[in-house]
Amino acid sequence: MKSVYLDSAATTKMRDGVIERMAAVMKDCYGNASSTHTYGRRAKSLVEAARKRIASHFNISASEIIFTSGGTEADNLVLRSAVRDLEVTEIITSKIEHHAVLHTVEQLKVEFGIKVSYVNILPNGHVDYQDLEALLQSNNKTLVSLMHINNEIGNMLNLRRVAEMCKSHAALFHSDTVQSIGHFKLDLQDIPLDYLAASAHKFHGPKGVGFAFLRKGSGLKASIFGGSQERGLRAGTECVHNIIGMDEALAISYQNLEQEKAEILRIKHYFIERLKETLPEVQFNGMCAETSESTYTLLNVCLPFAPEKNALLQFQLDLKGIACSKGSACQSGSVKGSHVLAEILDQDILNKPSVRFSFSSFNTKEDIDYVIKVLADFKN
Amino acid sequence: MKSVYLDSAATTKMRDGVIERMAAVMKDCYGNASSTHTYGRRAKSLVEAARKRIASHFNISASEIIFTSGGTEADNLVLRSAVRDLEVTEIITSKIEHHAVLHTVEQLKVEFGIKVSYVNILPNGHVDYQDLEALLQSNNKTLVSLMHINNEIGNMLNLRRVAEMCKSHAALFHSDTVQSIGHFKLDLQDIPLDYLAASAHKFHGPKGVGFAFLRKGSGLKASIFGGSQERGLRAGTECVHNIIGMDEALAISYQNLEQEKAEILRIKHYFIERLKETLPEVQFNGMCAETSESTYTLLNVCLPFAPEKNALLQFQLDLKGIACSKGSACQSGSVKGSHVLAEILDQDILNKPSVRFSFSSFNTKEDIDYVIKVLADFKN
Repeated sequence: MKSVYLDSAATTKMRDGVIERMAAVMKDCYGNASSTHTYGRRAKSLVEAARKRIASHFNISASEIIFTSGGTEADNLVLRSAVRDLEVTEIITSKIEHHAVLHTVEQLKVEFGIKVSYVNILPNGHVDYQDLEALLQSNNKTLVSLMHINNEIGNMLNLRRVAEMCKSHAALFHSDTVQSIGHFKLDLQDIPLDYLAASAHKFHGPKGVGFAFLRKGSGLKASIFGGSQERGLRAGTECVHNIIGMDEALAISYQNLEQEKAEILRIKHYFIERLKETLPEVQFNGMCAETSESTYTLLNVCLPFAPEKNALLQFQLDLKGIACSKGSACQSGSVKGSHVLAEILDQDILNKPSVRFSFSSFNTKEDIDYVIKVLADFKN
Repeated sequence: MKSVYLDSAATTKMRDGVIERMAAVMKDCYGNASSTHTYGRRAKSLVEAARKRIASHFNISASEIIFTSGGTEADNLVLRSAVRDLEVTEIITSKIEHHAVLHTVEQLKVEFGIKVSYVNILPNGHVDYQDLEALLQSNNKTLVSLMHINNEIGNMLNLRRVAEMCKSHAALFHSDTVQSIGHFKLDLQDIPLDYLAASAHKFHGPKGVGFAFLRKGSGLKASIFGGSQERGLRAGTECVHNIIGMDEALAISYQNLEQEKAEILRIKHYFIERLKETLPEVQFNGMCAETSESTYTLLNVCLPFAPEKNALLQFQLDLKGIACSKGSACQSGSVKGSHVLAEILDQDILNKPSVRFSFSSFNTKEDIDYVIKVLADFKN
């Protein structure tokens, strides 16, 4: 059966070169990177070379990168330590953040009694910058946590603008950049944000590894305690093969960025045209159809089918070998619908089936033709 | 140059079959285990099959296994949640625990104001069970955290005895079993402990993955918040390849257990004999030379060299390609010596160089002959 993977925002197909490099490291370099003998030093030097190369993409220093088990852990590390160790008493975030931020902030509210403010989200899915400006007037020690690219609708935040707003109000700024690292270049000397979180499996690297960027002198401390790995900021034996795989995947992604971006954009635009032609009443949620306002890697479409056909549509797409998503994979088990769409859409649109299709350079126009055919058949 | 790896307590050489299985999973099964489509369900079914097989070794149910990024995270999860969610107000532990327990307990003391009691350790490195019995008389809601096998001196705790003592005093019992899982069989229907922590890279599996056993109805909650993976107990996209690698490694270890144990014991006994013969004043720290009281996988020896030759010895062993350790890898970066040896040895013995040699079935008698030769040359 034909199989079409259009869920790269959930996770990406790993590149062969990344897998090969990881297998070689597991085979030949199994020392503990914290051991001081030759085996350990070899592992350590691989880890530190990876850290240095990763830092170089963002124009930061290697010591500002902390390796974690993924984006979720990186978000948790930043948010928890900001509250516990920097005495942040208010977090400004939004209701369309990933649960790694939302649920962590809710937990911190319970544990530390912090104030949580949610910035207004416009109907197009963008953050209301005026409302953010108003929220920043408070005299509380504040951290702002807003994602760079929304994982469901693709809307892009103006990172520099928010970073500068935060700076001018002496607020800290953390961004979940899980959907943008590996897909967009960021110069962190130019953008004065304080922290970010990234995850390797979103850019054709391995699952179970990510990193936090903590700007020099951040004052943040560990959330997992034990050995003194990661300069005391994250205890636990270094997952050398995953770190090397992440570095390799990121290097390839940035090396091929312009070419792959152009390829993916061609596919996305083709998909938009074919959708409009096949299902004229199709709607695009958020700003995902606007190239300059959203990531090139996803489309979130409201399909002009009756609400009662929602479950059947999901079933049919899966049956036909098409992998796509209703929301983020992290909430798939949940019976609730998308908290992001619920925040921005009117109830009548929300009732219709919305599907997130997300792309990588492994996709082809033939993939799109196949999806269009399945959707056209479903309509009839 | 000859290269001899005798630091398997720090981390083990991965088995080829484990690496191959992981590479195949990364290549062919890259779906997000939390996605509901075919790609996701395939990944999920691999993860759940692994959970089931891992549980089967311990005679527990799959739902009692929570996958983590390693032993350290598993220790942190148990200890933090016991204090935060079960209202534990006293932790009884020992000064010779791994830092993953010691530093976490210290942090919980700062954050929650819990009482921390350290059970007396006998000069032979064993826990003083009478003192433990005395400490358990307190009326506080108590958790006991004592490791099964000490990672530096190899002493084994009588897990069942401690579990039963805790049970009779209504105390919870957590054991860091990082050095025993994969090396000893544990029937957790027979041993009434509440929680344990394990790490794959100690039994020829991948780094960056481990698990916590949480007995049914534990009441523990997450420490990393976000998606609802691991039944809400540990957010973050499942690291499928590492989980599969851990399962594969554990299955092979338990399948070959008796044979490999016999091989390793032969090597250990041979090493003891050769050491006594070559350096008659050699001493064995803790109970590591007593087969029934310690693990078969390590020897911690106090070498009869002058204190001032300590650094030179480490340098010489490394120069000759011998990987061994002064303490745990997790504290290698630290300028302090072993906190375990400091607790049990008199100052005059402590001043002499002690070295931990730890074994796996990849070692041979020739490895031992080589180390003996290097030590004999060093003596002369």
